[in-house]
Amino acid sequence: MKQRKGNLFVVSAPSGAGKTTLCKRICDTISGVRHSVSYTTRKIRSGEINGVHYMFVDEDEFRTMIADGEFVEWAEVYGNFYGTSRSHIEGMINEGIDVVMDIDVQGAKQIRRHFPDSVLIFIMPPSMMELEKRLVDRRGDSADVIDTRLKNAVEEIREYKIYDYVIINNVFEEAVEELKAVIMGERLKITRINHEWIEEKFLKEAQ
Amino acid sequence: MKQRKGNLFVVSAPSGAGKTTLCKRICDTISGVRHSVSYTTRKIRSGEINGVHYMFVDEDEFRTMIADGEFVEWAEVYGNFYGTSRSHIEGMINEGIDVVMDIDVQGAKQIRRHFPDSVLIFIMPPSMMELEKRLVDRRGDSADVIDTRLKNAVEEIREYKIYDYVIINNVFEEAVEELKAVIMGERLKITRINHEWIEEKFLKEAQ
Repeated sequence: MKQRKGNLFVVSAPSGAGKTTLCKRICDTISGVRHSVSYTTRKIRSGEINGVHYMFVDEDEFRTMIADGEFVEWAEVYGNFYGTSRSHIEGMINEGIDVVMDIDVQGAKQIRRHFPDSVLIFIMPPSMMELEKRLVDRRGDSADVIDTRLKNAVEEIREYKIYDYVIINNVFEEAVEELKAVIMGERLKITRINHEWIEEKFLKEAQ
Repeated sequence: MKQRKGNLFVVSAPSGAGKTTLCKRICDTISGVRHSVSYTTRKIRSGEINGVHYMFVDEDEFRTMIADGEFVEWAEVYGNFYGTSRSHIEGMINEGIDVVMDIDVQGAKQIRRHFPDSVLIFIMPPSMMELEKRLVDRRGDSADVIDTRLKNAVEEIREYKIYDYVIINNVFEEAVEELKAVIMGERLKITRINHEWIEEKFLKEAQ
């Protein structure tokens, strides 16, 4: 059934809960779903592509965009800036594309304010112990960074009740199925479907 | 994630839209979902099992149950009585089982009144022409019965907006996936999950 507009799915999770992999998989497997591309000032990592993983800009460019009101939300995280372009999101939604954004709790709140129909999904790690293990196993982070991430994780989890859905990323394939169910289910909601299409198809002749 | 209580899914569709087959498949494929068994006074058909497809009772027994307030909803359809036992539904929900009921629009309204948290799902036929074809192909119905069913179908479709979700049963396997998504998605909703369990698991030590 054709949607009038795309839906906006905001996915948050503490660092290490598996959010990025999950969102990537979803965008690869459900048709009509695309990942939003954020702007960032952080350095490009090996394997990352500008315009695909992020729009990489320098701090001057980023500050100009802030001044121009280009961001629906932006934040400084661990010394780098990250921001979501309003026109990027609105463009996709108006084309009927469902947009998946991964973003932290503060960003999610800002998105909800600008897009009240957005769907907020929180991904939990299997347990706090497993989260710590995953952060330690991830290369390149110092003990201090891991400690900060763990404290932030608890602060983020404390706010899970502002979200519409909660998924526990215990078995990855099950979490994929659950995120898929949330997205497909939302598309079928009476508040989101194309009523003109239904009336044309089923009720026009009968009237 | 353990649910505190089961959810109640009410599935309606005009006769011929494929509701019964769809509900049967769902109950066979998703764990923790069970079909509610209605009481009826209509004659048992070949292949039907008392207590599985329906609880078959005579009209005197049915009227006694009405008088005793046993039904959360009941209706007379084409000369036969159909009713849903409150204790049957509540028993399953309290055990944490998700219950799927298939029931007409009037029945769905009564269920919503008694169970405000119930999820109402409307199944549309692929088109009105296809619906007519399916009703004609079905054996044992007279032209008059088919005509009545078609008129009722239009009346039922007119009320689709009281439902929470709409699924078009065009390709059966896709409709199964969609109904599955609705049920799985609802289980993950913040209003339905077990908050004590989450707080115990993720926030207890941190407090």
